[in-house]
Amino acid sequence: MAALGVEPLGHVLGGRSVVEDDRWGPVEARLRLDHPRVSAETVRGLESFSHLEVVFVFDRVDPDGIEWGSRHPRGNPDWPLVGILAQRAKDRPNRIGVSRCELVAVDGTDLLVRGLDAVDGTPIIDIKPWLEGFAPRGEVREAPWAGELMRDYW
Amino acid sequence: MAALGVEPLGHVLGGRSVVEDDRWGPVEARLRLDHPRVSAETVRGLESFSHLEVVFVFDRVDPDGIEWGSRHPRGNPDWPLVGILAQRAKDRPNRIGVSRCELVAVDGTDLLVRGLDAVDGTPIIDIKPWLEGFAPRGEVREAPWAGELMRDYW
Repeated sequence: MAALGVEPLGHVLGGRSVVEDDRWGPVEARLRLDHPRVSAETVRGLESFSHLEVVFVFDRVDPDGIEWGSRHPRGNPDWPLVGILAQRAKDRPNRIGVSRCELVAVDGTDLLVRGLDAVDGTPIIDIKPWLEGFAPRGEVREAPWAGELMRDYW
Repeated sequence: MAALGVEPLGHVLGGRSVVEDDRWGPVEARLRLDHPRVSAETVRGLESFSHLEVVFVFDRVDPDGIEWGSRHPRGNPDWPLVGILAQRAKDRPNRIGVSRCELVAVDGTDLLVRGLDAVDGTPIIDIKPWLEGFAPRGEVREAPWAGELMRDYW
């Protein structure tokens, strides 16, 4: 299928340099939006929001290592075989990550954030304000392994 | 900056054919994941989740019409000038949308969904299960215009 024209708007600066599974909550980093077309106008008003939704690319994943089938989350045989689109692992088609984090401050076109689970150097392809109105509607049900996996994540 | 290799995994089939602002909640559609590498294994176990996070491309937006500065959300002069990355409008850099919707059923590699705010034909670039553990942590604060805009959205 035809590739879509997606390009980085900037990168994660600081935070963790090594990919780890857990304890992302206190990690602070700077989102440096240095695309030539991004200016202070592009992020105007963002400070009215406490949380961001950040869309990024797991660029350290080798494209040849992308999973298209199923596997045990985190390789844990106690958990079921789960398709890559039924989990949030990084080795996924298109290698796209989506996470919510706290917006600590806006500094020009740099955004200071806390609790973003993306390492130093990660390309950012979109930033959106988090609106409670965009949370899931109705009761949420999830697989038991998912709650276990998240126990120490933040 | 260099383009990233992002390609559609499939498309929205059905639902709305015309872009509208409001009342997306009852809209049902089928996500047809017809990329040649997607199989039943790719979505195995997805039925254990009630909600999906869908990443898609607003492909009806003319790339030349992308906003990089600020404007009034929905063109409403009663609301402030807001940067495109401080709102969720479709005419944004990279044209990426992220939404949560209900997963009604899995039918092979088709996913039946309810309440996805993407029109018929929209390219899908990622599907993730919604985990409550990935919701924002801490108290959420948002701009007053955002709550007004969402009043009739679903």
